[in-house]
Amino acid sequence: MAKKFSVGIDLGATKIMAAAFDKKMKIVSRTKGRTRGEKGAKDVAARMAELAREALEEAGGPSAELSYAGVGAPGPLDPKKGVVLTAPNLGWKNVPLADMLRKALKRPVVVDNDVNMGTFGEYIDGAAKGRKLVVGIFPGTGIGGGIVIDGEVIHGASGAAGEVGHIIVEPNGALCGCGRRGCIETIASRIPIACAVVSAGLRGQAPYVVDRLGTDIDRIKSSDIADAIDAGEKVVEDIVRHAARMLGMAAADIVNILSPDCIVMGGGLVEAMEDIFIKEVAKGIKDFASPSISPTVEVVAAKLGDDAVMVGAVENARRRLEL
Amino acid sequence: MAKKFSVGIDLGATKIMAAAFDKKMKIVSRTKGRTRGEKGAKDVAARMAELAREALEEAGGPSAELSYAGVGAPGPLDPKKGVVLTAPNLGWKNVPLADMLRKALKRPVVVDNDVNMGTFGEYIDGAAKGRKLVVGIFPGTGIGGGIVIDGEVIHGASGAAGEVGHIIVEPNGALCGCGRRGCIETIASRIPIACAVVSAGLRGQAPYVVDRLGTDIDRIKSSDIADAIDAGEKVVEDIVRHAARMLGMAAADIVNILSPDCIVMGGGLVEAMEDIFIKEVAKGIKDFASPSISPTVEVVAAKLGDDAVMVGAVENARRRLEL
Repeated sequence: MAKKFSVGIDLGATKIMAAAFDKKMKIVSRTKGRTRGEKGAKDVAARMAELAREALEEAGGPSAELSYAGVGAPGPLDPKKGVVLTAPNLGWKNVPLADMLRKALKRPVVVDNDVNMGTFGEYIDGAAKGRKLVVGIFPGTGIGGGIVIDGEVIHGASGAAGEVGHIIVEPNGALCGCGRRGCIETIASRIPIACAVVSAGLRGQAPYVVDRLGTDIDRIKSSDIADAIDAGEKVVEDIVRHAARMLGMAAADIVNILSPDCIVMGGGLVEAMEDIFIKEVAKGIKDFASPSISPTVEVVAAKLGDDAVMVGAVENARRRLEL
Repeated sequence: MAKKFSVGIDLGATKIMAAAFDKKMKIVSRTKGRTRGEKGAKDVAARMAELAREALEEAGGPSAELSYAGVGAPGPLDPKKGVVLTAPNLGWKNVPLADMLRKALKRPVVVDNDVNMGTFGEYIDGAAKGRKLVVGIFPGTGIGGGIVIDGEVIHGASGAAGEVGHIIVEPNGALCGCGRRGCIETIASRIPIACAVVSAGLRGQAPYVVDRLGTDIDRIKSSDIADAIDAGEKVVEDIVRHAARMLGMAAADIVNILSPDCIVMGGGLVEAMEDIFIKEVAKGIKDFASPSISPTVEVVAAKLGDDAVMVGAVENARRRLEL
């Protein structure tokens, strides 16, 4: 009898990852490819299906069968219908991704937001395992968030609950992609931090990054900023600590509203500078959240890395399909 | 056979209200009395039990039987054990209110936070009936909040989820009772608004309130502020609109995080100046929440008034007791 596997797919702006899971929900194979969003949604969906089939075959040979697939995609999206409403990084609008993949794979497919799935993955088998009220905060190019309460992913009325990146911390602050000013994303995500680091470099205060990479903001990765700190540039460390502290202030709002027992943090910036982010966010919560609430929350680093979205997406699909 | 009723009790800082509910969860009688917190928790619990018995007798005569009681009480409290952890207005610390009432009434008693119960009441039979993700915001002497998701009251890890009054909107703002600075409660609750109104009166800009009531902040009720606006004092209207707008900015954080379909607003200030609060909070959300989320939330005025906490408390008790 052919072996059965489920597949989790993480659709990112630059790469697609897929993994086959056995019945115990353990990963048995992994594949990845380029997204090439410019080729259009049809092409991307075809590549996703292809990668899913490759993962499946690698896991169980040519006769391996797919039970179902779970997908984490950038969003806002409609999690019930599996429609990606807008994904600026892919140039998508109203793409019925779940339907497209169902046709290609001929099996049930559940699509949900990637950050929701990353948070859910950490809840299922990562740093937030066993917690009751989990908020995920993922600062990287943007700042995504997800909420899991008693094992349920919270989508809210718009489907986009967990937009923690757009909590406003500076009403007269910098312009955000959402059209507002001073969202925490304009302070504590990769681009504004890179801007501050390059500015400090141009002022001659912290030359490490500018000397090596020049002043093109978009070329500066989180790891480059971490390298400058490791090289001893205190100014860069101050820049990152301040940003992380402001993120802690935004996290304090979340703590006041939801009283989570766990905030799990991941994303490029946290992966590159875990100690600073975990410590400063915890400090921000201690300083800015209500003292009757702040002692009951723990801030932890995500530990599933690149697997988090796929783990969450597969388990989410299993539950949604009631398998 | 003796008729059976359940009783809902709303324990406030100055008064206690109780109501008997029939099996269809409709109120059939009401009683109330003074709290007199200074006499101590034992005395207050005895008075609560007394009022419950009075409501019961009024509903069904001397042979009427109590099925169970649900209580809404101030404070951070432990909703599982029914222990009021701190209630500064009553001078209480770690009062096992549910146990005390169980002994007095000899029936099951469930105690939960009053603002949670008010929000839940509006969800069960008021302005938020039929909604899926409800956040209650109740500005009065303080600013309380409650969260109901898919019919479940959210307590969080600390038991005190929904502390919307301590969302910080001015990091260098006024000192709050919680020890932080610039919590929305320091801007949009009764005392700071009364302070601004009296200050404007002393400057000669808006004499209505000061002429009638003097400068004792604690004597100025929400309705007095409303009266000044009705008398045409634009400065007072500006003060209230600004406060309500700031509350809308805090509400925008809630909207970004949870994406509720309904925000229900009550409390003394909203009861006295409903139009201003509902309109300005809705405007604050539109202006400050993520545009992908804000269109799916509606801001509505609570409509159960004084009954909300009792309605919520009785239904909460029924569900918790699985009756």
